[in-house]
Amino acid sequence: MGVCVTNIARTPESVVEGYQGAEVATIHEAQGRKGLLASYMKPIYTGVKIAGNAITVEVAPGDNWMLHVAVEQCQPGDILVVSPSSPCEDGYFGDLLATSLKARGVRGLIMDAGVRDTATLKEMGFPVWSKTVFAQGCVKETVGNVNIPIVCAGQLVNPGDLIVADEDGVVCVRRQEAEKVLETANKRTANEEAKRARFEAGELGLDIYNMRERLAAEGLVYVDQKDY
Amino acid sequence: MGVCVTNIARTPESVVEGYQGAEVATIHEAQGRKGLLASYMKPIYTGVKIAGNAITVEVAPGDNWMLHVAVEQCQPGDILVVSPSSPCEDGYFGDLLATSLKARGVRGLIMDAGVRDTATLKEMGFPVWSKTVFAQGCVKETVGNVNIPIVCAGQLVNPGDLIVADEDGVVCVRRQEAEKVLETANKRTANEEAKRARFEAGELGLDIYNMRERLAAEGLVYVDQKDY
Amino acid sequence: MGVCVTNIARTPESVVEGYQGAEVATIHEAQGRKGLLASYMKPIYTGVKIAGNAITVEVAPGDNWMLHVAVEQCQPGDILVVSPSSPCEDGYFGDLLATSLKARGVRGLIMDAGVRDTATLKEMGFPVWSKTVFAQGCVKETVGNVNIPIVCAGQLVNPGDLIVADEDGVVCVRRQEAEKVLETANKRTANEEAKRARFEAGELGLDIYNMRERLAAEGLVYVDQKDY
Amino acid sequence: MGVCVTNIARTPESVVEGYQGAEVATIHEAQGRKGLLASYMKPIYTGVKIAGNAITVEVAPGDNWMLHVAVEQCQPGDILVVSPSSPCEDGYFGDLLATSLKARGVRGLIMDAGVRDTATLKEMGFPVWSKTVFAQGCVKETVGNVNIPIVCAGQLVNPGDLIVADEDGVVCVRRQEAEKVLETANKRTANEEAKRARFEAGELGLDIYNMRERLAAEGLVYVDQKDY
Amino acid sequence: MGVCVTNIARTPESVVEGYQGAEVATIHEAQGRKGLLASYMKPIYTGVKIAGNAITVEVAPGDNWMLHVAVEQCQPGDILVVSPSSPCEDGYFGDLLATSLKARGVRGLIMDAGVRDTATLKEMGFPVWSKTVFAQGCVKETVGNVNIPIVCAGQLVNPGDLIVADEDGVVCVRRQEAEKVLETANKRTANEEAKRARFEAGELGLDIYNMRERLAAEGLVYVDQKDY
Amino acid sequence: MGVCVTNIARTPESVVEGYQGAEVATIHEAQGRKGLLASYMKPIYTGVKIAGNAITVEVAPGDNWMLHVAVEQCQPGDILVVSPSSPCEDGYFGDLLATSLKARGVRGLIMDAGVRDTATLKEMGFPVWSKTVFAQGCVKETVGNVNIPIVCAGQLVNPGDLIVADEDGVVCVRRQEAEKVLETANKRTANEEAKRARFEAGELGLDIYNMRERLAAEGLVYVDQKDY
Repeated sequence: MGVCVTNIARTPESVVEGYQGAEVATIHEAQGRKGLLASYMKPIYTGVKIAGNAITVEVAPGDNWMLHVAVEQCQPGDILVVSPSSPCEDGYFGDLLATSLKARGVRGLIMDAGVRDTATLKEMGFPVWSKTVFAQGCVKETVGNVNIPIVCAGQLVNPGDLIVADEDGVVCVRRQEAEKVLETANKRTANEEAKRARFEAGELGLDIYNMRERLAAEGLVYVDQKDY
Repeated sequence: MGVCVTNIARTPESVVEGYQGAEVATIHEAQGRKGLLASYMKPIYTGVKIAGNAITVEVAPGDNWMLHVAVEQCQPGDILVVSPSSPCEDGYFGDLLATSLKARGVRGLIMDAGVRDTATLKEMGFPVWSKTVFAQGCVKETVGNVNIPIVCAGQLVNPGDLIVADEDGVVCVRRQEAEKVLETANKRTANEEAKRARFEAGELGLDIYNMRERLAAEGLVYVDQKDY
Repeated sequence: MGVCVTNIARTPESVVEGYQGAEVATIHEAQGRKGLLASYMKPIYTGVKIAGNAITVEVAPGDNWMLHVAVEQCQPGDILVVSPSSPCEDGYFGDLLATSLKARGVRGLIMDAGVRDTATLKEMGFPVWSKTVFAQGCVKETVGNVNIPIVCAGQLVNPGDLIVADEDGVVCVRRQEAEKVLETANKRTANEEAKRARFEAGELGLDIYNMRERLAAEGLVYVDQKDY
Repeated sequence: MGVCVTNIARTPESVVEGYQGAEVATIHEAQGRKGLLASYMKPIYTGVKIAGNAITVEVAPGDNWMLHVAVEQCQPGDILVVSPSSPCEDGYFGDLLATSLKARGVRGLIMDAGVRDTATLKEMGFPVWSKTVFAQGCVKETVGNVNIPIVCAGQLVNPGDLIVADEDGVVCVRRQEAEKVLETANKRTANEEAKRARFEAGELGLDIYNMRERLAAEGLVYVDQKDY
Repeated sequence: MGVCVTNIARTPESVVEGYQGAEVATIHEAQGRKGLLASYMKPIYTGVKIAGNAITVEVAPGDNWMLHVAVEQCQPGDILVVSPSSPCEDGYFGDLLATSLKARGVRGLIMDAGVRDTATLKEMGFPVWSKTVFAQGCVKETVGNVNIPIVCAGQLVNPGDLIVADEDGVVCVRRQEAEKVLETANKRTANEEAKRARFEAGELGLDIYNMRERLAAEGLVYVDQKDY
Repeated sequence: MGVCVTNIARTPESVVEGYQGAEVATIHEAQGRKGLLASYMKPIYTGVKIAGNAITVEVAPGDNWMLHVAVEQCQPGDILVVSPSSPCEDGYFGDLLATSLKARGVRGLIMDAGVRDTATLKEMGFPVWSKTVFAQGCVKETVGNVNIPIVCAGQLVNPGDLIVADEDGVVCVRRQEAEKVLETANKRTANEEAKRARFEAGELGLDIYNMRERLAAEGLVYVDQKDY
């Protein structure tokens, strides 16, 4: 038994586009330090950043059958987010599935398991964040679920949530909060730019953030090494 | 006590050459999903692929003495496959040993432990797949074995077996099966090319592989999100 | 309560400079196979090598407040070495702190935890060796220590010790031993160059290092495969 | 900023009681193989089994302040379920907090981090399932959340969900499904008892489950070793 | 496609019995420090030791179908040794299968994956060494192999090889070497008893093993702390 | 080359004795949350607690020769603390060495690697905290160091430092601070006893520690679930 939920609500593309200018670290801060997938999720090649709507897939260990079901649910601008029902490193995904997703306008894959054909995926320009790279093939025997809420790399992801991934990792933003979070993230980015100029000019964080007094209050003392 | 087996039988170079066109993932499928080394075996630099005959080496933890014994057994087209007798991350291998192997026409190293001098190895163009990179040096005190069957990264490797390694990992093919597996792999590659064209044209795996009926039989149901 | 030790003794720049020509693996050998940080310390991008004086920082888990205190203690040629008081993967460090350190002439960061903004750090050319990359933000609530002896990635590091890092990892040299170790390392490098020429010419380690007799004494026997 | 949700809906005690007779493995099967927390969650001592309503707590890394907030929300029959906002092994919990929880009738703790004072916890008879045992203390500086949905050890847990833990691990049952799942679990347990008698009598699973024909259809062949 | 090899050759029970008095550590030494399974293989309860003939099983990840095939091949005195074709932690084995094996006189299970129902297994007195304990259930969809050579926890195990397991772990002895290894192990045990008496009497290993001269030759020096 | 430092300064037994009443968690807090060895250091059996002076040993990977050198340096009340120069899981220690140490009045072993003969060690009542249990034997070829400062499981340990180990783990106290830390630990224990009585009586930590105001100031809000 399994279910494939169709016609899911998505984050509007106008909002998604705005996320192209925001970094994963900033977005995570902007929504109150939440939504980050585990640090073991790594890009298979660097120099890429994607933002899009989550199509969620729950698969059995060593079984990638449901990926084919999920492909049909994808629209341009989507990102496939896949999680096995128990920990697995097998290679669920390779260049043929990537070709199929690319033909539908999908922007990338977030896979809490292994992927393969990585040299070809890089050539094709199909970005993937995964737990590992492993050539181990999968069977197609057990039905799973598409577009139900899943836990992927320690984070709850609902279908239609916004996914942003860059070299620092992957963050999930609730669809309902995507607009507000973007606004906060953009302010944060602007604020960081201002700070950067001051740091470049040699100002210290101790002064910029006015930390000295509070550090002393918390008990920080300075001692010359010759007196230590 | 240790043994170094000489004059081992090898896979004929005519067969080995054929493997240059086949990928690790495809070869592993072609031989019935077996022979893959563990996913922690990673190339120290990308963009390389090698195929060759295994010279096997069993070493003591933190002791790389036997590598020098093994070098003498190598012929052009060989690949050194090394496994410690208990788990170890030390740097068994660096640029001097690589220079020696390269002088003998060896194509690369598969090391279930650490290696070092990786920047130089990349410059030299000597490919290595290893468990980790670690500068820790080794002693030369304990005798091991060369060209006996070993377990490397979870996989049995016999001397003279065929080793293929690319960005997806490392696969071992039994010497006796190398010709047949290549044939199957080539057919598989050809078949994948045909499939790729259909995926590029937007056909779905659900239809190409005729999956819909069986999915329904296994209980997959489609539900519109507004009814879920 | 915490302490920031000021005016620490440093390795003279004349000595530090000399280390630019020595590799981590060689330095570690030159000082008797000691001083290597754990193999999980990886550069966030390749093709870099740094040498400099350690400014040490002990931070609370998930709390990067003390990094700002440490920045003020940095001089040109220093390297920041950071260790959490219990294991943590959070992203303690990003592009703003890197901008601040760069403005002070700091050469890089050694972080036994996570870092973020790695794409920008690479663009800026600010080298980092870390346990992982993770966008997870930190708080600024708990005081730690600057320039006390710390254990970083399994290795004791004193303020003012010499740190060298390249693609093979990170090594720490005691300030008091830095001059002598460099001398030994340079001899070792020269010796390796001589050896390399012989290996390139096809000589075997078995003969260069005169190993055959001792191997036989330790019980190594050669057996033709047909007799095995 | 943080929130503590009060007066949460709970699974009725009449249902919770029924779970005392069901095993974690059986419950997980009964609800369609879902709800299991990661296998690294281990009991600090064996010979215990608990069932109760989840009080959920999200804490900052290395900061156990919110546990005190959570204690006040606990009622007899509850189980505290705690997850740090990023991975952490620190000892969030010891005998004083256990004394406080015990005084309120709480049945145990599920901690996706470290705990300490384990010898005393065993003496007190306060059961804990945790990621590790670690004496490392926590600060009380950062506000988190109580009784919001959290991801604990890879599994979504809502406040008021049913938690069952035994030597095999921890399973979470949605509050709304708790009654139905118990019914299925009880049937499954009864069915297993019947099967057990047949296995004890020497019948084979091949016959009890009528597997022989399907195995042959899937290609299983029997070969005598002398012909293999 | 899969194969079940029948009528395998076994180690004679007269030899197997002899192993009841030998420890895993001693056996491993007696056969030249080989045959040990990885250190992550732990008993689910302590105070047990088993010795018997290996019935080997290769299973698909998350699929325990072949265990039922294997049960039929078991005879009194056998030990089931199971390895998944790619790494997996799922609970392949529980009390019903244990009941079936016990009814056939099987002495225990070596499982390079997860097991469940551990409280019941302990009650039943059915010993298991496994990679982990995890309640996650398996499917029965994919055929594997019985009684072919497998790699289990990093070690090659042939059907009919001798398996010995105690609190220190699991060791595999080749069937053909079982008699000779036992003899060596027994001598070793006797020798250790003699040594033990000398250690109890306060003699030092330095003297018993005559180490002082060789230590000095290798460069060991003694320095009083006040001169260090 | 290696050194064995003799006649080391020790913590006076009068102080060591006082630590029998203090727990590892309390001692770690009493000295400002420092000194804890990594959480992977586990007792091989439960129900024990030891305190004593550190005899430190640095060994090569897979080489336990120096343990015999160290034994001679031990006095009644000492604890052996061993660390390999690179990570290793081999079984450095078994019942014969334990017999030798016991004969000298040594209280236990702290081993940042593997140990074996654990069933016998438990019978003998010789307590060990180790990284793992592994039967893998060691060679005796490489000289290391005794009674120099070492890093063991992430913590600096000097010879003569005080080691305390219980079920929560292992803590190291500097010899020079041992008396003062004990005093603080004892006060802390007394204070905890007072707190325990209040918790048992049902008082809340929120009130005992007067947290409510500060929590509100930090932004904690209470919301009834029906309004959330």
